Amino acid sequence: MDNKTTNKDEAKGSETLNHELMIKHVIALFRDTMPFNQLLGLEFVTEGEGLDTQISLHLDWQPALTGNPMQKILHGGVTATMLDTIGGLVSIVETIKQTAREHLADLQVRLPTMGTVDMRVDYLRPGRGERFVATAMIIRKGSKLVVCRMELHNEKGDHIAFGTGTYMLG
Amino acid sequence: MDNKTTNKDEAKGSETLNHELMIKHVIALFRDTMPFNQLLGLEFVTEGEGLDTQISLHLDWQPALTGNPMQKILHGGVTATMLDTIGGLVSIVETIKQTAREHLADLQVRLPTMGTVDMRVDYLRPGRGERFVATAMIIRKGSKLVVCRMELHNEKGDHIAFGTGTYMLG
Amino acid sequence: MDNKTTNKDEAKGSETLNHELMIKHVIALFRDTMPFNQLLGLEFVTEGEGLDTQISLHLDWQPALTGNPMQKILHGGVTATMLDTIGGLVSIVETIKQTAREHLADLQVRLPTMGTVDMRVDYLRPGRGERFVATAMIIRKGSKLVVCRMELHNEKGDHIAFGTGTYMLG
Amino acid sequence: MDNKTTNKDEAKGSETLNHELMIKHVIALFRDTMPFNQLLGLEFVTEGEGLDTQISLHLDWQPALTGNPMQKILHGGVTATMLDTIGGLVSIVETIKQTAREHLADLQVRLPTMGTVDMRVDYLRPGRGERFVATAMIIRKGSKLVVCRMELHNEKGDHIAFGTGTYMLG
Repeated sequence: MDNKTTNKDEAKGSETLNHELMIKHVIALFRDTMPFNQLLGLEFVTEGEGLDTQISLHLDWQPALTGNPMQKILHGGVTATMLDTIGGLVSIVETIKQTAREHLADLQVRLPTMGTVDMRVDYLRPGRGERFVATAMIIRKGSKLVVCRMELHNEKGDHIAFGTGTYMLG
Repeated sequence: MDNKTTNKDEAKGSETLNHELMIKHVIALFRDTMPFNQLLGLEFVTEGEGLDTQISLHLDWQPALTGNPMQKILHGGVTATMLDTIGGLVSIVETIKQTAREHLADLQVRLPTMGTVDMRVDYLRPGRGERFVATAMIIRKGSKLVVCRMELHNEKGDHIAFGTGTYMLG
Repeated sequence: MDNKTTNKDEAKGSETLNHELMIKHVIALFRDTMPFNQLLGLEFVTEGEGLDTQISLHLDWQPALTGNPMQKILHGGVTATMLDTIGGLVSIVETIKQTAREHLADLQVRLPTMGTVDMRVDYLRPGRGERFVATAMIIRKGSKLVVCRMELHNEKGDHIAFGTGTYMLG
Repeated sequence: MDNKTTNKDEAKGSETLNHELMIKHVIALFRDTMPFNQLLGLEFVTEGEGLDTQISLHLDWQPALTGNPMQKILHGGVTATMLDTIGGLVSIVETIKQTAREHLADLQVRLPTMGTVDMRVDYLRPGRGERFVATAMIIRKGSKLVVCRMELHNEKGDHIAFGTGTYMLG
C-alpha cells in the first residue's frame, strides 16, 4: 500500500469509498499482509466483482503442511487455519455488502479490531488430497456479531472438515 | 526412524515395551516426524518421567506466525494448531498411563489411526507475547474416546485461548 | 414395553429382526418411553418406511416452554433439547440403515449405551413461532461415532438455530 | 412483579438503582418469571450479597426429567438447559458487578435483549444422581460479549457435564 497518500487524497478516497474498492482492499489485506497466510501458501480466489464477489480459499498440498508424513495427511492445524481464515474474511465481505455506502467509512475504522470469538471444527475424514478448497456462508448477521459455517473439500470433492465460527466486528 | 529393524528386533521391542518407552516414543513422533509442528517451531517440554510425565507445548513468537503484522498478534490458526496438538498428545500419553503393561502393544497398533473428532477454540484476548505455552488436561476418558480441555497462555501468564477437543484412539 | 416376553419369543424376534422393525422400535422408544420428551410434547413425524424412513421432530408452542413470557420466546433449553434429541435419533436410524441385516442384533445390544458426546448450538434468532420443526443429517459416520448437523425452524421457515452433535453408539 | 408502580416510583427507583438491587432483580426474573425454569423446578441458590453474590443452580432428580427411565438418567436436554441458564445468569450478574453505578440504568435497558449466541456441551458421564448443581465462571468479559464456562455435578461431586457459552448483552 502507498503510504505517501496526502491528506487531500485521503479525504478524496473517503469520499469515493465504495463496496467494490473496500472488498478488494480487505482481500488484499488477508492475502498480502498476513505472514502466516503466506507461510502456508493460501490462495484467495474470487469470482464476480463488487456486490457479487464470492471468495474461496485454495491450498496446494505440500509436505511441510502434513501432520502424518507417511500418510501425506494435512495437519489438523492447517485445516483449522483455513476454516478460520475463510470464515473471518467472508464475515467481513458480507458485512461490507450489507452496509450502506455512507457507512462504509465507519466500518473501515472498526475492521482492525475484528476477530474470532470462538470456532468449532469437525474433522470428518483424514485430510488427503492434492488441492484443498475452503468456503464459508453466513448463518447469523448482526450489527457486531457474525456466525459462519465453513467447509473444506479436496479436489475430488471429498468433504474433509466442517467449521462453525463466531466473529466480532469492532 | 530406522526402518531396517529386523523381525527379531521388533519381537524383542514388543516384549520390553513399557510405559516410559512408549511415552517417549509418542513425544518423539510428534516432535521429530510431523513437518507442520516443525515448520511452526513447536517445542515439546516434559517434566518427570514414565507415569509422572507432564507435557506442555512452547512456542517463541516469530513474525511469520502473525495474522496482523502491525500489531504482532499470533494468527488464530497458530493458536488452534497449538491447542489441537497438545490436546491430541496429552490424550495419547494419559491413555498410555492408564493402560496395563500387557495391553500396551495393542494400543501401539491403534495409535496411527488416532485423530481429532472435533475441537472448539475460545479466543479470549489477542495473541500478544514473546513466548506461548499450551497445556491440556483430560476431562473424559473412555476406551476409545478422550475429551480434553486445553489452554494457551503467554509468558506473562495472560490467558490467550481455551480449547475443548474430542479425540478418538483407534 | 411388555416384559413378560418368553425366551422363545425373544429368539423368534431376533430371527425376524429387520431394518423396518428396528427403526420403528427405536422411534417408539424415543416417543413413548422417554419422560422428558413427553413433558415437552415432542412429536416424532416420519415419512416413508424401512430404509426410506425420514424423521423430524415437531413441537407446538406452549407458554410453559418459554424463557421470556412477555415476548413468547422459546427457552434456549427447549431448542437444545430438540436439537440433541433429533440428532441422537437420526444417528441411530441412519446407523441401522447402513447395518447389514445379520448385524442388527449386535447393534440392538449396543443401543442402550448410546449417548451424546458433545453438542454445539448456534442460536440464530429469537425462538418465536407457533410450531417448531427440528431436522438432522449425518455428516460423519463411523463404526462407533456419528457426527450430525441439526436445524430448528418455525412454521414460517425462519431459521431459529443450528446444532452440531457428536454421538457414540455402544 | 407489581405493575402498578407509578412514574414517580420508577423515577425514584432509577435514582436509587444499585448493584445489590439490580442483582436481586435479575435473579428474581430468572427464578419467578421464566416458565420453563419453573417447569423443571430449577432452584437459584445465592451466597453472599451485593458485589459478593455467588449463584448456583440446583435441581432435584424427578422421573419427568429423565431420558432413560430404566436407568434414571437425566435427559441431555435438562443438562443443556441448566448449563445455558446458569451461564446466562452469571454473565449478567458479573457484568452488573463490573459496571459503574451511574451506568447501571443503561445496562438495565439492554438486558431484555440479552441472549445466548452459541453453547458447547460436553457430556462427561451419564446424568445419575439425586440432586444436581450447575455453576459458571466468566472466561472472557467484553462490553457486549461474555464467554462462560459451566459445570454440572451431582450430589456426590461426580462431574456430569461441562459447558462453554458465548452470551451477548444488548
